[in-house]
Amino acid sequence: MANPTAAMLVIGDEILSGRTRDANMHFLAGELTKVGIDLQEVRIVSDMRGAIIAAVRALAERYESVFTSGGIGPTHDDITADCIAEAFGQHIDVRDDARAILQALYDRNGQTLNAARLRMARIPDTATLIENPLSAAPGFTLENVHVMAGVPSIFQAMVASVLPTLTGGAPVLSETVRVHLGEGDIAGPLSDAVAVFPDVSFGSYPFQKDGVFGANVVVRGSDADRLAAAVAHLHGLFAEAIA
Amino acid sequence: MANPTAAMLVIGDEILSGRTRDANMHFLAGELTKVGIDLQEVRIVSDMRGAIIAAVRALAERYESVFTSGGIGPTHDDITADCIAEAFGQHIDVRDDARAILQALYDRNGQTLNAARLRMARIPDTATLIENPLSAAPGFTLENVHVMAGVPSIFQAMVASVLPTLTGGAPVLSETVRVHLGEGDIAGPLSDAVAVFPDVSFGSYPFQKDGVFGANVVVRGSDADRLAAAVAHLHGLFAEAIA
Repeated sequence: MANPTAAMLVIGDEILSGRTRDANMHFLAGELTKVGIDLQEVRIVSDMRGAIIAAVRALAERYESVFTSGGIGPTHDDITADCIAEAFGQHIDVRDDARAILQALYDRNGQTLNAARLRMARIPDTATLIENPLSAAPGFTLENVHVMAGVPSIFQAMVASVLPTLTGGAPVLSETVRVHLGEGDIAGPLSDAVAVFPDVSFGSYPFQKDGVFGANVVVRGSDADRLAAAVAHLHGLFAEAIA
Repeated sequence: MANPTAAMLVIGDEILSGRTRDANMHFLAGELTKVGIDLQEVRIVSDMRGAIIAAVRALAERYESVFTSGGIGPTHDDITADCIAEAFGQHIDVRDDARAILQALYDRNGQTLNAARLRMARIPDTATLIENPLSAAPGFTLENVHVMAGVPSIFQAMVASVLPTLTGGAPVLSETVRVHLGEGDIAGPLSDAVAVFPDVSFGSYPFQKDGVFGANVVVRGSDADRLAAAVAHLHGLFAEAIA
């Protein structure tokens, strides 16, 4: 049976401008792989209503789960929650449960729940809150879309809250065989291996560093025995070129 | 006048599985910003024909230039060139000019231009080659799509070959003001600043590290004087919270 599919939508002007290097995608990709959910597409769009709404609609239709990152803070450029609501034709406003969570935090810290902070309690009517153990302001799940913060530590905490609620598949195992041959010499034998192991996926990722070149051949699959057999097959093929 | 727009398509199973952290997107984003081309969207898809073809068509229609990364090597999973040709309804086969470049390299290195390596000479009929000074196998430009390698050093060399052929816009300048206040306290005054400087873009990127929290307020624009005025305005607003 095929694993559940997922996509990610990063709302990230700061990534598109080259100011910041994305960290959330790499984190999420690793976590999903561990639980057997197949991340099939990532889109990064800027903080523009039309772009966010179109992307979330497209991804939510095509994949079983969608994870978003960014744009749920209190400032003028935080428009993700309203865009997600609009994408699903849902009403959104300050919701009492989210407001209570924020009020408790700011009371504890001796801060005021001002108008800007209150924007973080804007949650679509039928959404479920995602706990934020670090800075209280919750994320939310609406339909199959999980809306989370962009700050990496908070994003990671929210992913930890959401993942146990999802049904995973067979965890995907992987092994890497480092072959010291050009990809042009690897390609022929590798194509034969692909044919011998139709239930295993083979990827070839060339590297070139300090004058050393070769390729990491990554085999992936959910059956440990078949994976071991594929690795043994590769060792047989490329014995002299494996350190 | 608005700057030219661009998108990037990363063909990257290894990024979607969490095995590798993308480097090409971050590099391209920085280079495009320098020359005033506005990177508005990035998509990462897996090595599947349908996904690659659909994404390249969508992006090529919507943006002035599209840059792709990955999937143009000699192995079975390198299907990008054929997918790009199909996306534009173009014929693709081994092309003499690309074959000559590869033949010269392998002759020099005493290697054979075998069937797998020859796949790297598959270029759509009307495409223009992109020079690869590192490992010879060329990229290509077809219509408004620039097809480049995934290995970061080669990707970077190809970007350097392509960028001078494009018309840029006004380089986007940016300044960062680090404010030691919660975003909830920054948001109100910042919204006022946004209204005062409609020609400058303001982004607020919260940070939390080692118990220190605040936000980097990034102002962007193409006019250095207006940017300086916006920065001075922020210093006025948040004087006590700027180190």
